[in-house]
Amino acid sequence: MPYEFENERTIEFAETDMSGIVHFSNYFRFMEETEHAFFRSLGLTVHSDEGGVMRGWVRVHAECTYRRPLRDQDRIRIRLLVSERSAKSLAFEFSFLGSDGSQEPLAGGRVRTVCVVRDAGEERVRAVDMPADVRELIEVAPREKIEAARAALERKPREEGED
Amino acid sequence: MPYEFENERTIEFAETDMSGIVHFSNYFRFMEETEHAFFRSLGLTVHSDEGGVMRGWVRVHAECTYRRPLRDQDRIRIRLLVSERSAKSLAFEFSFLGSDGSQEPLAGGRVRTVCVVRDAGEERVRAVDMPADVRELIEVAPREKIEAARAALERKPREEGED
Amino acid sequence: MPYEFENERTIEFAETDMSGIVHFSNYFRFMEETEHAFFRSLGLTVHSDEGGVMRGWVRVHAECTYRRPLRDQDRIRIRLLVSERSAKSLAFEFSFLGSDGSQEPLAGGRVRTVCVVRDAGEERVRAVDMPADVRELIEVAPREKIEAARAALERKPREEGED
Amino acid sequence: MPYEFENERTIEFAETDMSGIVHFSNYFRFMEETEHAFFRSLGLTVHSDEGGVMRGWVRVHAECTYRRPLRDQDRIRIRLLVSERSAKSLAFEFSFLGSDGSQEPLAGGRVRTVCVVRDAGEERVRAVDMPADVRELIEVAPREKIEAARAALERKPREEGED
Repeated sequence: MPYEFENERTIEFAETDMSGIVHFSNYFRFMEETEHAFFRSLGLTVHSDEGGVMRGWVRVHAECTYRRPLRDQDRIRIRLLVSERSAKSLAFEFSFLGSDGSQEPLAGGRVRTVCVVRDAGEERVRAVDMPADVRELIEVAPREKIEAARAALERKPREEGED
Repeated sequence: MPYEFENERTIEFAETDMSGIVHFSNYFRFMEETEHAFFRSLGLTVHSDEGGVMRGWVRVHAECTYRRPLRDQDRIRIRLLVSERSAKSLAFEFSFLGSDGSQEPLAGGRVRTVCVVRDAGEERVRAVDMPADVRELIEVAPREKIEAARAALERKPREEGED
Repeated sequence: MPYEFENERTIEFAETDMSGIVHFSNYFRFMEETEHAFFRSLGLTVHSDEGGVMRGWVRVHAECTYRRPLRDQDRIRIRLLVSERSAKSLAFEFSFLGSDGSQEPLAGGRVRTVCVVRDAGEERVRAVDMPADVRELIEVAPREKIEAARAALERKPREEGED
Repeated sequence: MPYEFENERTIEFAETDMSGIVHFSNYFRFMEETEHAFFRSLGLTVHSDEGGVMRGWVRVHAECTYRRPLRDQDRIRIRLLVSERSAKSLAFEFSFLGSDGSQEPLAGGRVRTVCVVRDAGEERVRAVDMPADVRELIEVAPREKIEAARAALERKPREEGED
């Protein structure tokens, strides 16, 4: 059963800011893109709207640690690991890697998300058990894989105080 | 009856790109913010969802002419003029002005928008007559005001070929 | 010599807004992504910074006509045509197409851009002749191709007043 | 000496996504806007470029906990507390509050940022001591204020499992 996924993409000009590197808020979009590509690769739907009933996921926590900057036109890989799973929620661990094959992460992040339903005409959502196909297709990665990803993020970059 | 509005805002760091100025796509967000602030100032709702029936506006055309760049922390004014009105659609003319009181626009734009409804459970929207309160509260600006805004945009900036 | 290019991409969740479709400002990012992918395909650099001298392009006009909405996870093709070229500027014509092979555009746009240089320590840019490699590699598309793209955009969508 | 700040703003339509609420990545922009408004309120510059030498701040960590969604046109307050300060870095704690005066946070976040310089013609930045005016004007909030902000974030929302 799948617990990992890798997405590759090019950094776009509009994702940079005036300091010449990717704005820190965009990393959260890159993580979400990877999560959705993971779902897509399994034939799973992330959000649906049937007869006005919206089913989807809301984020309850997100974080990112930045080690080396990303720049315009950089080619990057974002690696996803499923790190936790309960009846209603999933957590993912992300590693941002260069396209040079290095395992030294440029950044790393983590997102926790809860499955929700919003009934027709309602404004508020309520947490629900995730659909059977998600529960059956997605499993948690082996503990050592998750710990290796986290440990790589804690290591000091080669040149201290740079970037 | 109101046909013009002015919104003031500060340029944010995340709105710049690596060339050091505001990314050109963000001007369209600034125009929309101004349009929505105009609606808000009149007590009008832009988007609503009642019992699953979504009522709102979709854009059919948008354009912007850029004359001088906007930079991080700049204080700008965005002036809106209602330039056209039919049963189902509105068009707005926007002028981007500095906070120095100059009438020389830094940029100018134009958006045409159509009132739509999406029925519960439907994916597609259909154009409808705009709500009575919008029709009764918003009118088209005098022709000479619209023409003056457009003419200011066509004038050559002071130093040719710069910025 | 190249005068056209096609880029394919998936619509991301973060690009939608609460009306359930892609926010109109994002089309301008999609056009820019396509333009930069075109440059990349020719081995050309869009922005450079050498010894503090920044060389790049600034937009002087951008517009988009919206015909049918784009939705989360849609696969779209964005077709670029070089529509004008002077010593210092380029203009591009863009067609947004579905992945079903249809030539009926979902949207279409146009961007005019000027080559600029900003000297070290300067705040302002000045328009300059474009680099020789750009001038030598990029040419204007045949008039009939440009006119066909524009004509397709003017055609009435199949069901009037919808979407 | 100042260690706290509050910024008020309206949620914009473009900040929502198709699930009808503010996209989770935008909270990081709201935090940054508040941080920059805090600097501005003290007469401090966040980013500067003198003779090609860029001085600014890079983020090394950012996180956000989401408790209740933000919606289009909501009026929110974002409260900043300076939570840590070293020679080269600052950390901030943020609370997202409604405009109803409630102290129950809708969300809360945290950003750690390091002062950097990039020399003319260089691509890489290096961490430096923060400017004297920042060091002299900004101090760390009292421990109990920071702990109260964090504790409020950990409290269960009133109706469990909702929103």
